[in-house]
Amino acid sequence: MNAAIIKGKLTGVGTGPGDPELMTLKAVRAINEADVVAFFCKKGSTGNGRAIVEAHIRPGTIELPLVYPVTIETHKDEADYKNPINDFFDRSAEEIAAYLDAGKNVAVLSEGDPLFYGSYMHLHLRLKDRYQADVIAGVTAMSGCWSMTGLPLVQGDDILSVLPGTLSEEKLAERLAVTDGAVIMKVGRNLPKIRRALASVGKLSGALYVERGTMANGAAERLETRDESPAPYFSIVLVPGWTTRPQGEKK
Amino acid sequence: MNAAIIKGKLTGVGTGPGDPELMTLKAVRAINEADVVAFFCKKGSTGNGRAIVEAHIRPGTIELPLVYPVTIETHKDEADYKNPINDFFDRSAEEIAAYLDAGKNVAVLSEGDPLFYGSYMHLHLRLKDRYQADVIAGVTAMSGCWSMTGLPLVQGDDILSVLPGTLSEEKLAERLAVTDGAVIMKVGRNLPKIRRALASVGKLSGALYVERGTMANGAAERLETRDESPAPYFSIVLVPGWTTRPQGEKK
Repeated sequence: MNAAIIKGKLTGVGTGPGDPELMTLKAVRAINEADVVAFFCKKGSTGNGRAIVEAHIRPGTIELPLVYPVTIETHKDEADYKNPINDFFDRSAEEIAAYLDAGKNVAVLSEGDPLFYGSYMHLHLRLKDRYQADVIAGVTAMSGCWSMTGLPLVQGDDILSVLPGTLSEEKLAERLAVTDGAVIMKVGRNLPKIRRALASVGKLSGALYVERGTMANGAAERLETRDESPAPYFSIVLVPGWTTRPQGEKK
Repeated sequence: MNAAIIKGKLTGVGTGPGDPELMTLKAVRAINEADVVAFFCKKGSTGNGRAIVEAHIRPGTIELPLVYPVTIETHKDEADYKNPINDFFDRSAEEIAAYLDAGKNVAVLSEGDPLFYGSYMHLHLRLKDRYQADVIAGVTAMSGCWSMTGLPLVQGDDILSVLPGTLSEEKLAERLAVTDGAVIMKVGRNLPKIRRALASVGKLSGALYVERGTMANGAAERLETRDESPAPYFSIVLVPGWTTRPQGEKK
């Protein structure tokens, strides 16, 4: 490596919840200026992040797909302080580091907001002490969903809880009982359990179920009356809070 | 009113957390296309939202400041189902309705995300059944703050709680004990209490204090070592979760 080369800059770029118009001006600029655009994806797909930013990638930009391992093997014989997904993040970080060392600026796409449940943070932690590393905030999937439905979520001194649908029914009910607004992520096959937990604390009637929020084919409906067909993993449930809503205000 | 006039469209526009580049493309377009740009502000100021979007307002656009009442009188003699702040929202909604009736499109600015603790939702509820009313999601202040600091907040199955600093010390500690990541809003004079609550549940050492996140003069520091000087009302505290962070990953 030539000692005169100035190292490139790493940028974690929030691409927003799906609608390409919900990208920020800063994200557009970062992608347009990047030498390398990296993105997480599954084998055989370029992923949502890449699709969202399509229009802003300059011709000639290097594209670096970071393909999630297809099978998560457990390697029981190895020391277990690192699992295969960590090996994958290690390898991805080193692929990116090679470009940064060569003086190239790398933008890593992150759907929604990079530091809010995003894979980018695994790379950020591995690289931030060796390179300039910036994060561009993005509109989260949950903001996209409640905006699509026009559902006011929280106001004033309300508490908002973001809960994974993977919690047990008991834990979900416990948490839902002590919050005002709530967002339940990772709905998928947890839908019947989530419905029971909400009903048990009297919060089912106001809850909305949202699929593919802010995508062209997004849809929302009342959770209470949604049928029992399987829900996509990334669907979410919104529970409105706003405890201070005056009686005079229309629901 | 001429019956041939097509009513205008209302749009709640999230302007993001402060940095004008953290506006979305959709927000920029909505402001640029609006006939009327309305914004909440205090007497003697045009407010942060107006400052953020400055560059995107077309010459000739009508500006409609919605000035918060200076004093909140209680009108004890009147029926108390509505308080003066509701009267203010009623009046503001009618001012906007007059423009909508005249066929003008009205964009209402909302710092951060309109339906996440935003004043816009008061207008949305009053007008959404009479007019087409859309909401454009924005980057929240909390996303702006954790991105500025590069602090990964939550991952995987973590729970995130958004808590007002106005809660009692006991309630704060209770809620902090059962969450992974947390964002504490409305810090201001509640700072010493928040610090005690975090210390009592062993979560003070990782917490960050952020002032004016994503503004040009924004600053972050460890809450544990911040001095006792008064904090601005809109400063926030970030408590990182990410319980699944592998031991092999650098802090």
